[in-house]
Amino acid sequence: MNLENAVKDNIEFFSEIGSDPTGGMTRLLYTKSWVEAQNAVKTKMEEIGMTTKFDAIGNLFGRVEGSELPNETVMTGSHVDTVVNGGTLDGQFGITAGYLAVQYLLEKYGQPKRSLEVISMAEEEGSRFPTVFWGSKNFVNEENRAAVEDIADAKGVKFVDAMRESGFDFNEDANRGRRDDIKAFVEVHIEQGNVLENEGLQIGVVNNIAGQRRYTITLNGESNHAGTTPMGYRKDTVYCFSKIVSEAIDRAKKAGDPLVLTFGRVEPKPNTVNVVPGETIFSMDCRHTDAQFLKDFTEELEAFMKETAEAMEIAIDINRWMDEAPVPMDEEIVTVIENVVKEQGFKYRIMHSGAGHDSQIIAPHYPTAMIFVPSIKGISHNPAEETKLEDLVEGVKALAESLYKLAY
Amino acid sequence: MNLENAVKDNIEFFSEIGSDPTGGMTRLLYTKSWVEAQNAVKTKMEEIGMTTKFDAIGNLFGRVEGSELPNETVMTGSHVDTVVNGGTLDGQFGITAGYLAVQYLLEKYGQPKRSLEVISMAEEEGSRFPTVFWGSKNFVNEENRAAVEDIADAKGVKFVDAMRESGFDFNEDANRGRRDDIKAFVEVHIEQGNVLENEGLQIGVVNNIAGQRRYTITLNGESNHAGTTPMGYRKDTVYCFSKIVSEAIDRAKKAGDPLVLTFGRVEPKPNTVNVVPGETIFSMDCRHTDAQFLKDFTEELEAFMKETAEAMEIAIDINRWMDEAPVPMDEEIVTVIENVVKEQGFKYRIMHSGAGHDSQIIAPHYPTAMIFVPSIKGISHNPAEETKLEDLVEGVKALAESLYKLAY
Repeated sequence: MNLENAVKDNIEFFSEIGSDPTGGMTRLLYTKSWVEAQNAVKTKMEEIGMTTKFDAIGNLFGRVEGSELPNETVMTGSHVDTVVNGGTLDGQFGITAGYLAVQYLLEKYGQPKRSLEVISMAEEEGSRFPTVFWGSKNFVNEENRAAVEDIADAKGVKFVDAMRESGFDFNEDANRGRRDDIKAFVEVHIEQGNVLENEGLQIGVVNNIAGQRRYTITLNGESNHAGTTPMGYRKDTVYCFSKIVSEAIDRAKKAGDPLVLTFGRVEPKPNTVNVVPGETIFSMDCRHTDAQFLKDFTEELEAFMKETAEAMEIAIDINRWMDEAPVPMDEEIVTVIENVVKEQGFKYRIMHSGAGHDSQIIAPHYPTAMIFVPSIKGISHNPAEETKLEDLVEGVKALAESLYKLAY
Repeated sequence: MNLENAVKDNIEFFSEIGSDPTGGMTRLLYTKSWVEAQNAVKTKMEEIGMTTKFDAIGNLFGRVEGSELPNETVMTGSHVDTVVNGGTLDGQFGITAGYLAVQYLLEKYGQPKRSLEVISMAEEEGSRFPTVFWGSKNFVNEENRAAVEDIADAKGVKFVDAMRESGFDFNEDANRGRRDDIKAFVEVHIEQGNVLENEGLQIGVVNNIAGQRRYTITLNGESNHAGTTPMGYRKDTVYCFSKIVSEAIDRAKKAGDPLVLTFGRVEPKPNTVNVVPGETIFSMDCRHTDAQFLKDFTEELEAFMKETAEAMEIAIDINRWMDEAPVPMDEEIVTVIENVVKEQGFKYRIMHSGAGHDSQIIAPHYPTAMIFVPSIKGISHNPAEETKLEDLVEGVKALAESLYKLAY
């Protein structure tokens, strides 16, 4: 098979399912385009000789039975859903890479010794309903089904109604358990960052998914007339904010990679030129691959923020609403992939993922690792999301040869 | 006369004209409540024996003829309009203080040697139409009438139509000149700041109205994923903003009073927790009583902002859209007022105004000064705008005795 043509044709084919009129695509869980995409993946899998099945919530599995160890399964795949007006590669490329790698292996080497599976997971992005990792959490039998009984999308459509209208119902496998046949999981994904591009590399071998702590912080000072209030009588929350951000980011830069720290949202009140802002609400997002480092760094920042605000007689409320631990990838699988990309002569690096992925849900249950391909300018979750075709093809090759080592 | 009762009754009376259902008042130029207020002021003036007249655009003048030097006029007054949902004292108190001071003087000392006038100016706030100081600028014959021919309010009502519907038309005095009989102008106003309150004072004798420079500054860096973009690859405009504000306000505090510096508006894009903000627009408002100091300080800040942005490879656009020079008050009038408040035993200070006032338009033409009374918590342009009754009464006394020195 001509891998380059196959990658090009398949990505183009799937970019039409849920495409937005102004570019990009929107394929939300349990919508018409989502159903269409899952069925199209199913057809693709069957065309290359895989047997397919859906689980009760809509995860799709394509399978090739192993000749010698059929009860040991090597799996790959990613999620089929997108963000609103996202790109064509996030999630979809991992599924496409999966069945193309299997096709490549079957053509080149015939039936594997272990079983091979490709999973097209139902949902990862959390873009329609207030739930994330719905696909991978169901796959590892870790989801909270009671929690989705009462949620609805922005239009008021209930989660369970949308699920049933798509032809799925989790009551049908209420008593299932977690599979014990999965011996390895490898997910291919676009990097969604600019590290590989900036370093001129073709492949990232992911050894860790960073932990995240997210905060909403509120400063309450005093709104005053910008002309009539001397500097000494002010409780200026934007000034306080600037002291916090300036010092916090200096500390983050000094701590060095893989720490990242972002103050993405800033909302002063009343937010007008001639009033000293009496309130400022802002966000803080901090990520690191080491749980203890992340905890220590952010807790020192929390203390610093409190001191800074108190010194200005400004009240501060620090709300840490997300605290996700880093997830290390499996060392053996990482080594398998690294050896493959070395053998292929690809320019690569071992790296962590700063973004979340299905693999972080799967890794605690089955030996897991990821393969990254470069994102042009690091752009993702955007119609401009793009990867050079040659990089996509190398991603499929790296996956195929890794699956070969694991399953043949 | 009982000044305390008179002040209380008159402020209460005028707080009903244009009062908002939820508190505060809205009395915009050439609206029904504005016409009602001007006519009510006219009646009040006539009740105490003043002769009244409107000019062509709706400034109201109440006059008592001088016995010895009738062609030398000592004037007081302020503006009758308010901001949207403003307080009951801003502007209106200066008018009320004016005619009550005249009533007090006539009862106590009879006819003045010089003529006394109270002006109720048509407009100062710029709250309905995109024009400010319409009243005082017409009074000193300095307005641009052509410029208002094409402006309209937010509902599309043309300025000139609103003016004519209120019974005024500037074509009626197209060839008038500037009056040359005004020997002194004294404006009483609430401080709109918290200096007098914080220092436990009753009266501020204003010797200068601060100059202002206002800016809109745009930083253009790069929007990136908050998880996947290492600190070294970022062009984070909120970080750049924080460096600018932190240093700039430190410099302003070091420079000391009367310098004030405010960054009141901050708008990052896309303004969300998990994206490094690629653009940040913010405002800067700087005021000082010394034109050269204001110029030097802000130009050093402009240079510092450019250096800071350039060092981060962030593009910066600095738009200085307001540059108003400080306006010194007349030294002799200031001395007259200071001597009066000393004699009365009032706790006072010489101070500048950080806010703009009609007096800054009038001062270049006629000897001018202002008297401030304290604002509770410095609140103004707000229904909670308030001054203790005893402080209002002392403001009227200070004005009356100053007018006595100037006109008797």
